[in-house]
Amino acid sequence: MSDSGAPRRSALVGRLITLLQERIRSGAWPVGSRLPVETELVEEFDVSRATLRQAVQALVHVGLLETIQGNGTFVRATTELDAVLARFVGGEDMLTVLEARRAVESEAAGLAARRADDADHARLAALAAEGRTALDAGDHELLNRVATHFHRAVVHAARNTLLSHFYDAFEAGATRSIMQGPAPQTARALVEEHEGICAAIRSGDAERAHRLARAHVTPAVEACCSHTR
Amino acid sequence: MSDSGAPRRSALVGRLITLLQERIRSGAWPVGSRLPVETELVEEFDVSRATLRQAVQALVHVGLLETIQGNGTFVRATTELDAVLARFVGGEDMLTVLEARRAVESEAAGLAARRADDADHARLAALAAEGRTALDAGDHELLNRVATHFHRAVVHAARNTLLSHFYDAFEAGATRSIMQGPAPQTARALVEEHEGICAAIRSGDAERAHRLARAHVTPAVEACCSHTR
Repeated sequence: MSDSGAPRRSALVGRLITLLQERIRSGAWPVGSRLPVETELVEEFDVSRATLRQAVQALVHVGLLETIQGNGTFVRATTELDAVLARFVGGEDMLTVLEARRAVESEAAGLAARRADDADHARLAALAAEGRTALDAGDHELLNRVATHFHRAVVHAARNTLLSHFYDAFEAGATRSIMQGPAPQTARALVEEHEGICAAIRSGDAERAHRLARAHVTPAVEACCSHTR
Repeated sequence: MSDSGAPRRSALVGRLITLLQERIRSGAWPVGSRLPVETELVEEFDVSRATLRQAVQALVHVGLLETIQGNGTFVRATTELDAVLARFVGGEDMLTVLEARRAVESEAAGLAARRADDADHARLAALAAEGRTALDAGDHELLNRVATHFHRAVVHAARNTLLSHFYDAFEAGATRSIMQGPAPQTARALVEEHEGICAAIRSGDAERAHRLARAHVTPAVEACCSHTR
């Protein structure tokens, strides 16, 4: 199928798509923000309304933008990978998500033991301590929120961009699993396990960090198994 | 930004995109195949050339299709996730890919020990035997090809759609790593390790299958580490 009808315009649309993606990727237009109005963008990028609309539609299609009639166009994801993963993960059952989380979190914990810097260690220690405080206060909602931050910090410390992208996608599923799923560990065990993972990463023991992180997700996988299959 | 200019046409384009995606996902238009010519598609889907071109352009943008000037439009991936993952994984360094592979393959081996059916066991045994035959014949190129099929069969037997999608993306990177990277194991050790993973999966020993699959990728991760960092 040739595209001889409008070759110049489609090259322009492609260039504009790249410029808009850079804005989003750089954080100049953060996730959740509303794009400037059409007239402003037409002027800034020096393109026609038709070109602008085609570029925006392409980014809506891949999930970076969402247009809400009468309200505007909003940034929904930073990269296509995050947008597509979020869409796919949304459609998976909980067991599938938990198994994929176990794969990513255990590998990440082992890598974090080798690569975490002082700032990572401080952040992990602070989150483990916040979890302990939430436990002592009996605030389980806060504890769950802190747990999510803790796992994200471990994945960040692994310095593996693929695992990070996957984890971002799982996180929505993981949050759902905390709300919907059975809680196989007591809150106390959860806090102690985080402290153990934190200590293993600090001591640089990759095998121990990997094993503890794996053992931490396994009860949720097994509880989900017995509930859904 | 409102879209009031052409609401009817963009709904049509959206519907046509869905129809084309279904053709691709179902395998009616397999990866590598050329799409029918424009006039044929316009007639079949009862749409205008402009609508058809917009839908095709959207699918080119997400990586499902590729248009080659003067040659036609070709199917490049089955789902957006595969297309986007393949693009992202292509840009990652080898160590990042190997670490992500280790996460997916070790988790998959453990799950396969629980979920593999008779057909999976037969396929894994056949691939392990083919690897042994290639070793005895000194055919290392064949051995590498069989190794790739073996790992894919393990991931398939895990019955986890997220891990499967990730693995499909890694496979291109994995093939590159075999060609470019140092070979940390001898060919004999590689064949023996495949046989060990195969036996652990057949015996239903999830922990052993997981541990062996992890130990199988680790030498490549470490060799890559010492070469690149």
